[in-house]
Order: sequence, then structure tokens, then C-alpha cells
Amino acid sequence: MTSPISFTFRATTTGQARLGTLSTPHGVVDTPQFMPVGTQATVKSLTPGDLRTAGAQMILANTYHLSLRPGHERIARLGGLHRFMGWDGPILTDSGGFQVFSLGHLRQVDEEGVTFTSHLDGSPQRLTPERAIEIQEALGSDVAMAFDQLVDPALPGPAVREAMERTHRWAARCLAARTRDDQALFGIIQGGVDERLRRHSAAAIAALPFDGLAIGGLSVGESKADMTRTLDVVADALADDVRVRYLMGVGSPLDFFDAVERGVDLFDCVLPTRVARNGQLWTSEGKLNLRNARFLDEAGPIDPACGCEACRNHSRAYVAHLFRAEELLAYRLASLHNLTYTLTLMRQIRSALADGSFASVREGVTAHYGDRRDGVR
Amino acid sequence: MTSPISFTFRATTTGQARLGTLSTPHGVVDTPQFMPVGTQATVKSLTPGDLRTAGAQMILANTYHLSLRPGHERIARLGGLHRFMGWDGPILTDSGGFQVFSLGHLRQVDEEGVTFTSHLDGSPQRLTPERAIEIQEALGSDVAMAFDQLVDPALPGPAVREAMERTHRWAARCLAARTRDDQALFGIIQGGVDERLRRHSAAAIAALPFDGLAIGGLSVGESKADMTRTLDVVADALADDVRVRYLMGVGSPLDFFDAVERGVDLFDCVLPTRVARNGQLWTSEGKLNLRNARFLDEAGPIDPACGCEACRNHSRAYVAHLFRAEELLAYRLASLHNLTYTLTLMRQIRSALADGSFASVREGVTAHYGDRRDGVR
Repeated sequence: MTSPISFTFRATTTGQARLGTLSTPHGVVDTPQFMPVGTQATVKSLTPGDLRTAGAQMILANTYHLSLRPGHERIARLGGLHRFMGWDGPILTDSGGFQVFSLGHLRQVDEEGVTFTSHLDGSPQRLTPERAIEIQEALGSDVAMAFDQLVDPALPGPAVREAMERTHRWAARCLAARTRDDQALFGIIQGGVDERLRRHSAAAIAALPFDGLAIGGLSVGESKADMTRTLDVVADALADDVRVRYLMGVGSPLDFFDAVERGVDLFDCVLPTRVARNGQLWTSEGKLNLRNARFLDEAGPIDPACGCEACRNHSRAYVAHLFRAEELLAYRLASLHNLTYTLTLMRQIRSALADGSFASVREGVTAHYGDRRDGVR
Repeated sequence: MTSPISFTFRATTTGQARLGTLSTPHGVVDTPQFMPVGTQATVKSLTPGDLRTAGAQMILANTYHLSLRPGHERIARLGGLHRFMGWDGPILTDSGGFQVFSLGHLRQVDEEGVTFTSHLDGSPQRLTPERAIEIQEALGSDVAMAFDQLVDPALPGPAVREAMERTHRWAARCLAARTRDDQALFGIIQGGVDERLRRHSAAAIAALPFDGLAIGGLSVGESKADMTRTLDVVADALADDVRVRYLMGVGSPLDFFDAVERGVDLFDCVLPTRVARNGQLWTSEGKLNLRNARFLDEAGPIDPACGCEACRNHSRAYVAHLFRAEELLAYRLASLHNLTYTLTLMRQIRSALADGSFASVREGVTAHYGDRRDGVR
């Protein structure tokens, strides 16, 4: 099968960082790139127009959630996920693996798949590699993800190994199950934070004819040192692989720099929008918590360096008031701002990779987001 | 004092309907006109840009809410309400009278004013005519409202009369208290649904040098017949009065026709946005309740006759899904649509007054919103 996507990149002077272009059936994505998360076919509070304005090129939606509600068959009948949510750009769907293991109740894993109960109504549900592909094909995303078994990396080695090996067997079944030639399929590397397992998993997944490679099982509570060490191992194992690489569930501003220099091309994370709804705003001056009383009297914008609608038209005082009053507009303006910040940061990273200024851009961000400044103001 | 607003109108061939222009310090308003309600300095879920796009020319904000949170002195320090909420068009503030009597707890009325406890934190609060003017002057709205005493029109006659008479005495005190020459002040006619009291109140309020006249105490549970009869009485009493007339807290699509032909120029109501957040959409085909399961499979727009962002970009199925999933975007798209519908209807009413087609436009709306069709689909 010819790959429905193509990825070209050039090496940079920054570690293993790559500057690239991912072409998908619904358009082109500049990499490194961040994908906003539209769990239930909507990035919470925002329209597709907002996402474009914020700079989004590709977004993520969730197989687990959409299969339960409104149902993937329904979305297929309505013309597919792009039409359903009114987003005509590239979409990546996760396979449901992460959600089954983080949201599903009473889950039972066997070699065939996973049985669990819906977090919505307690109804019994079953997800297998074949079923995960079937759902994603019904949704019609540009990129589907293989169905993997996630485990807590803090579990004893044998448990991590067993899940990894099952993930590899499921990966082959996902490849065998696919029928659409207009949807890419990415494999997922597991193995926790055990170097040997990670190296083994990277080789095993890379040996399969996936269109892209994802690094799963990170950003689930491990230390920063464990994450970067694991990324080093994977980068080393994939050194000669030219496929696009996607680090799942990351991240925060500094994580992007750590991962990009280790060869990561794609990111997704709920963090920018989730913390936004709690009043945490990411700015060129660091994190602000607009729930703090002092912002109620600040007439300036959330971020003087930002051109989003929230920063152009409104003061910190106003948005802080909206949070206190629990007004819906608070969540919307904060989400729009944090996505604009994140996507602008990714653009700055791409520019920095092009002109060799990665270290100094990183230094500027570290000054406001580094360990000693990590407290939210 | 020269009035800070001017109102010109021409009579029409439709009852006592007037087609006019209200000029305020922050811009011109075509009448008849509907003012979206931004209780806490935000029309829930929408930006000022959305309001403009929906066709809003003038909006309403609430003295009671804003004085409690974030505080009118704070808003004044931040440059006034227009700058605070990022809306540079005309704003009308109510006086807090309605909220004190509908939201305040443990209220006690004396001749001086009202003592009540905040619905937010139970703290003791006091509102008097002078204080209501002081707050509104701090907010800096284009139009302030006199502080009135609202009573349930179903109360015994003497209670309605007493509140009306106190409203008249408070009206004079509001006029005496004003100090800004760039803020209009409207008087409020009370008197429940008692014809004699209404006639008396209309004459008493109209005798005072207000910049405009409001009809209060309606749309609080009285029958439709009581409302139109009361509007007839007021229209008759004000027949020769050239000031702008504002019917507070109305309304629904058919109410507009009933009131416009009785000489009403301005309306406000939370209804379009409040019902929107519950999934009730107003369309050219009548009311739809998007929480009904059948909409989950309808690929067409909410209203094929509407050009709002929700109708241009999204299907009924998608918005119905958003409501089921309790997604923030549901409330936003539905609010935008219902305001677009309401403001477009007001524009159609103005056109119809200009070209004599009021009756046929009304007939078209009645076919979908009339008694026999009042059920929400």
C-alpha cells in the first residue's frame, strides 16, 4: 500500500532536531508541530475558525469518546469526522488505548483485546486492535493510531514487558486490519522508562510498515529525567528512520524543546486548554493564574506579546473577573490564548531550527518557565 | 441639562409603531431594537465581536451584579464599563431594582431604599435611588435607569399602588441625584396590570424630565392578555410623548410584534441566550430543542435561512452532539444563533414598518411561533 502521507525533513544543527513537512489527505503540516486536542470532536469552547486563527494546522480527536458518543457509525453516516466537526484540515485520532486504561472502569485485558465499562453509562464495552481500526476508519481521520496497552511505568518490570510485547502483537494486527488507503497508521512504541525495553520496542515497532512512529507511555507521571533519558534511547534506536515521529501527550513549553532536539516532530496535549479553563495562562512572561486577586486590577493584556483576540481586546482585569464570575467567556478566551501561545511557540521553534537560534529561544522560555520560575504567579 | 441622547422617529402605518433612530454618546441605534443582556459585563459565552456580527447595536448590563462583583469603583478605575468589557457601542444599565427584588434575599424596603443580602456571599447590601445613580455613573453607561420598586402584579391592589407611588418618589430622587451630562436617565412606569394605576404611573413618570421612558413590571408572569392590555393603556397615556420607549424584560418573537405596534422602541431579555444554553433554538421554522434525539442524525444546519457561524459551519447533528456531551461550544453556538435570529427579526420588523409589510411578516412568524405551534419541536 502506498502511504497516504508523506514526510520530508532536513536535519538541523540542533541535536537530532528535524525541520519538516507532513503532507496528509487534508493538507500540509509544518513540523515540529503541536496538535490541539478535540476530545469529543471539539476543542473545548473553540470553533474551527478559532483554531485556524490560533495557528493550528492539525488536530487530534478521541476514538474512545467518539465511539461511545455520538457513535462512529453516526459520524460516518454524517460524512465523516472532518465534516462532522467542521474542520477541513488534517486530523489524527488516537486508538482509544490511553483512554481505556485511564478512564475505563473494571477493565480486563486478554490477548484478544480489552473489556471495560463506559465511563458514561457503565455499559460493557470491548475494544480490540481490529475494532480500534474499524472505528478510526469510520471516523475517517488522516492518521489513525495503533491500539496499544498502556501501563504505569512504575509497575514491576515484567508487567511493563508483558504490556509492551502485547502492544507489538496488537500493532501487527492493526496493520493487518486496515482497509482504507487514504488513512495513515502510526505504530506506538512502549516499554515504560526501562532503557532495554524501550530500545527493544522502538526496533520492533520500526520494523513494521507503519506510516509514522509514536512514542507512547510517557508524560504519565514519570520524572523529567526519566522522560528525557527515554527520548534519548528512542532517538538513538530510530536514528536512521525517516518516518515522522510523534510524542503522545506532551506537553508544556519546556518539554517541547527537550523533545524537539531529540527528533520529535509532532505533539499533542490537553494541558494548554485544560489549565486555561482553570485560569492558568501561558505568556511570554511565564504562567499567570488569573484567579489571583491582584489581576482584578490589572488594566494590561494577558500577554503584551500576543496578538490573540483575548489579548487584543481585553484586560487581565476583565478576564480575571470572568473567572471569578464563572462566566463561559473566561474558558473560551483563556483557551484561545493558551493555544495561540503554544502554536506560536512551535512556530518560533521552527524558525529557530531554521536559523540556528534554538538555544537562545529556549533560554528565553526557560527564564520564565524554568525550574526556579516554575511557580505560577 | 441638555439630553445626552436624541431620539427621532417617524410614525408608521402600523398601529402606534414608530421607526426611529436613537443617538447616544457611543453610537446610533436603529429602533425598534433588541438589546442582548450582558448581566456580568459579558453576554454569556460571546465576545463583543460576536455581538457585532450577530447585529447587536446596543447591549444591557446589570448594576446589581456589577456593583457586587467586580465592583463599580473597580470598573471606574479601569476606565469604565465600555473599556472593561471591550464593547464600544451604546450600553444601557438597569438600576438593580429588578435584581434586588428577584435575586436579593431577606430584603427590607423602607422609604429611603432597600436593604438586602448579596446572593453571592450573604453580605448585607443597601440600594437607594441615589446609590443606584452613583453606581451607574461609575459604570459610565450611555443610559442609566431609575431605581424602582417592583412587585408581583398579582399582589393585592394596595401593595401594587404603594410600590408604584414609591417608584414615583424614587424617580424624582434619581433625577436629583444625577451629575453626569453624558449619561441619559430613563424613568420606569410601574402599576402592575391595573389599568388605572398604569395610566396614573405613565402620566407621573412622563411628567418628569427623563430622557426616555421605560415600562417595567411586565413579563413577570402575567398573562399575555394582561400584558397587551397594559401596553395599550401605556401607549394611550403616552400618545403625545416623543421620547424613546423601552419595554423591560421582553421578549419572545411574537411579543416583539405585539409591543412594536403599541409604540415600543427598545427591548431587552435574557430569553434568547438563556433558552439557547438549554438547547432551545429559535429558527425560521420555529423552536427546536436540540436535546431531542432525532437531531443527532440531521445533517442540515440549525436554520437554513440563517447566516450565523453556527448555521454556516455546523449541522444540527453536531450541535446536538455538543449539547449531549455538555461541551462549552454548544452554549456558544446556540447563543450566537439565537441572538442572530432575534436581531435579524428586529431588522425585519424595521423593514416591514418601512414598507408596510408588518402584518405579513408577523403572520409568517406566527405560523411558526403562534399558540398552536408554541410547542418546541
